[in-house]
Amino acid sequence: MPRARRPIRSEMGWSTPDRIVVRGMDLPGEILGNFNLGDMAFLELTGRVPNANESKIFNAMVVTLVEHGITPSALAARLTYLGAPEAMQAAVAAGLCGLGSVFVGSTESCAKMLVEALPDAQAQADLPALARRIVQGHRARKQIVPGLGHPIHKPVDPRVPRLFAIAKDTGYYGSYAGLIQLVQQEAERAAGKALPLNATGAIGALCCEMGFDWRVCRGLGVMARAVGLVGHLLEEARAPIAEEIWHRIEDEASEHLRPEQ
Amino acid sequence: MPRARRPIRSEMGWSTPDRIVVRGMDLPGEILGNFNLGDMAFLELTGRVPNANESKIFNAMVVTLVEHGITPSALAARLTYLGAPEAMQAAVAAGLCGLGSVFVGSTESCAKMLVEALPDAQAQADLPALARRIVQGHRARKQIVPGLGHPIHKPVDPRVPRLFAIAKDTGYYGSYAGLIQLVQQEAERAAGKALPLNATGAIGALCCEMGFDWRVCRGLGVMARAVGLVGHLLEEARAPIAEEIWHRIEDEASEHLRPEQ
Amino acid sequence: MPRARRPIRSEMGWSTPDRIVVRGMDLPGEILGNFNLGDMAFLELTGRVPNANESKIFNAMVVTLVEHGITPSALAARLTYLGAPEAMQAAVAAGLCGLGSVFVGSTESCAKMLVEALPDAQAQADLPALARRIVQGHRARKQIVPGLGHPIHKPVDPRVPRLFAIAKDTGYYGSYAGLIQLVQQEAERAAGKALPLNATGAIGALCCEMGFDWRVCRGLGVMARAVGLVGHLLEEARAPIAEEIWHRIEDEASEHLRPEQ
Amino acid sequence: MPRARRPIRSEMGWSTPDRIVVRGMDLPGEILGNFNLGDMAFLELTGRVPNANESKIFNAMVVTLVEHGITPSALAARLTYLGAPEAMQAAVAAGLCGLGSVFVGSTESCAKMLVEALPDAQAQADLPALARRIVQGHRARKQIVPGLGHPIHKPVDPRVPRLFAIAKDTGYYGSYAGLIQLVQQEAERAAGKALPLNATGAIGALCCEMGFDWRVCRGLGVMARAVGLVGHLLEEARAPIAEEIWHRIEDEASEHLRPEQ
Repeated sequence: MPRARRPIRSEMGWSTPDRIVVRGMDLPGEILGNFNLGDMAFLELTGRVPNANESKIFNAMVVTLVEHGITPSALAARLTYLGAPEAMQAAVAAGLCGLGSVFVGSTESCAKMLVEALPDAQAQADLPALARRIVQGHRARKQIVPGLGHPIHKPVDPRVPRLFAIAKDTGYYGSYAGLIQLVQQEAERAAGKALPLNATGAIGALCCEMGFDWRVCRGLGVMARAVGLVGHLLEEARAPIAEEIWHRIEDEASEHLRPEQ
Repeated sequence: MPRARRPIRSEMGWSTPDRIVVRGMDLPGEILGNFNLGDMAFLELTGRVPNANESKIFNAMVVTLVEHGITPSALAARLTYLGAPEAMQAAVAAGLCGLGSVFVGSTESCAKMLVEALPDAQAQADLPALARRIVQGHRARKQIVPGLGHPIHKPVDPRVPRLFAIAKDTGYYGSYAGLIQLVQQEAERAAGKALPLNATGAIGALCCEMGFDWRVCRGLGVMARAVGLVGHLLEEARAPIAEEIWHRIEDEASEHLRPEQ
Repeated sequence: MPRARRPIRSEMGWSTPDRIVVRGMDLPGEILGNFNLGDMAFLELTGRVPNANESKIFNAMVVTLVEHGITPSALAARLTYLGAPEAMQAAVAAGLCGLGSVFVGSTESCAKMLVEALPDAQAQADLPALARRIVQGHRARKQIVPGLGHPIHKPVDPRVPRLFAIAKDTGYYGSYAGLIQLVQQEAERAAGKALPLNATGAIGALCCEMGFDWRVCRGLGVMARAVGLVGHLLEEARAPIAEEIWHRIEDEASEHLRPEQ
Repeated sequence: MPRARRPIRSEMGWSTPDRIVVRGMDLPGEILGNFNLGDMAFLELTGRVPNANESKIFNAMVVTLVEHGITPSALAARLTYLGAPEAMQAAVAAGLCGLGSVFVGSTESCAKMLVEALPDAQAQADLPALARRIVQGHRARKQIVPGLGHPIHKPVDPRVPRLFAIAKDTGYYGSYAGLIQLVQQEAERAAGKALPLNATGAIGALCCEMGFDWRVCRGLGVMARAVGLVGHLLEEARAPIAEEIWHRIEDEASEHLRPEQ
């Protein structure tokens, strides 16, 4: 018996010889000249045009994640470019491959945690009780609470108060932002050490405020970092460091093995 | 004799416990809330804040390249997500890997061609003569002229007149835009068939107008497509098509080999 | 206070002008001409030369995973090659990116499950009781048992009896192989439907038999598939299918959106 | 007018519930237990079983490229694994992305150069004259001759004499191997400095001897390196160095920017 065919459909866009339509909007006529890149990302993810407040908070969330100096991801991209300068797209791809559970994935885990604790943002909820339950649950399972802690930014990640100020200005500081701040206080109290809310935690909460699917969260980091990686590769093309890094590490890593010269 | 060490330096950004600085600007204090994602990309690439005209034309250039429906790149990303939904970053990476010489690289080749033909944008130049020389050179070497031709958009790629209109509005329609349009006319005449200027050609010319290194060009397509691919993967998560594509193609591709059942 | 430096060391290999040493062995003098590619992989993973039995079973395990026709991974690689034929490495990379939790990761999960249930292969253990506990635990947590089930190969995955026959020949059919077969029977009984042991499950068990870290398992699939993807890309270069796939899917996916022509 | 459909066909393999066939051979019955991983790669690329000589030289060629210590590619893979240890496949993919024109692509360029100079291996040819023409052509175009020169291995790359010895043993030292050695001597004489034939040059020549399409060459490096990268990632999981590399480079690269502390 042959397999039944299921239809193949996408709503992302279509083209004819004289038209290009993206999410229902005419690209040349309605989008170009009117949308900035963050608004275009919003359209891609939601299928609609952001209003002024949505545009402001969404652009701030994504811009936050573009550049953080010499990260492992930037190093991977630069070392890849050293071997294949003719394929810059592959160097950006290599840099993105490491945006997993350790560095960017926590946005996603944080949003998932918050939306599972508070499925209905409009409901009356005892946020302090929810915060305690979240922290106790993670401690009982010996899991870290996603979105908390930072190796450098202590006692406060400086991006967080700014993001929350923009959220208040634009009307996106609500129960999820409040909840993650209570979770942070509770977790810090329980751990007895500094556990600052970090940028991925704040952005995870803001994704919930905007009604985004938690699966969107990692995508925000990925698109933002793609922008930043192109910046790093342009610098690498002009003022290269990858070859020097390679030789230094190779020398040191094998020094104990090589015969004395 | 030990290898001499060379210094390792980057100007992209730095952090201390309470500060994050990107290209010399304070991220929370000066960037967040003020920059849209396209402006942030401009800062990454140039090290400075775009003015209003630069912001408008640059955002339009990048936005143009975000979404073009079901492309090979979008399909590669979706098929990758099917096997590793927990690693969305790798699916975006897979989608980017194909942005090479055939689809996105032509922006780069076009910019390189234009800037080599006209190294000084301010110089008086005989643009029609330059255009003829470019076309004759490519024909003599049996090379296609980068930035011309499109499988669907004929006789005009609808993105091009809109991009050039925005360029005129913002003061970025100059010698390079003029030259690529003369090249298009000359190439079409020489070939005796429709060879529309496509979006990658127009964007390559606009990169020259803005004084960008031609190596930036491919990067614009890569960052834009990363945004679009996240949109495709969110749709794939909600309304999947990759599995159906796989089964159909697998069935058809091996039908001539499998024994009758 | 400056950060304390930790040493950077690797045991993989080293070079001087006239020598190349890999895992302590002279590459030209001891390895080339003596090792096949599977033996070299064994050396990379274990730091030692396989004996004849190890070579036979290990090569069989890896060879099993090289080629399975038109998979999502092969399609992603081919669609990537369409856009960047000058960067075949990136097309292989794109194909590998999807070897995650759904298709290849189950080898890893299966090995982890077995080694956690039976940490000491030499210990006397009640394997049927262990198998019941594993299946009950997964059912209670509503998790699927890794290594079981296959969309096509029913009631028996034909690779499994052959792999286990080779394992018996070479002395690698022990408690882990026995345990996964008991788990399979128990899971099938509990589910009341066919749940064949698949190749990833058998290979996961054999990794345990050989004393490999469960983290090696996914790597076996990744290296094997890299070999297979090069095969697919060579076929794509000679008898391309990616462009046809693209056009068909694009047409169908957007048919409901495009105006009638 | 609707687009005409073209057929979609692949000869790589097929499956039914009880069979898996790869390149016309039964995987469980004919391949498993009989083929080593290098032989399987040969089958994938050529569609046929290697004889004993082909197996020996082909395995040696691929094994040569598996491991070369701490390369940029190994570093990119390790830095990627640091951020996404749950997605080892993506770390291998990142490591492969840099196998482009600088490090591995020269195999391909060398094979292409040789086969264009000597399209028919059986023809009587004046090899010294061909070698002179090749070197003069590259010098006139200011191009480097692919396959020559090495940053470390001087005056002889120790892999080359061993590979050519195996080629002589197995009957694969012919006109292409002879030609590349003449090219090396001619290039060294013309340059007036050491330009050793490197492993990629020797392997490029041997690909020609075996009648492989030059497009296969890069693939040999890609599959071999995938094996090596899995080895590096297993070491990284057990004795990590990526985090230390990251912190050191980040500190040094931004030291001139950060305020004194």
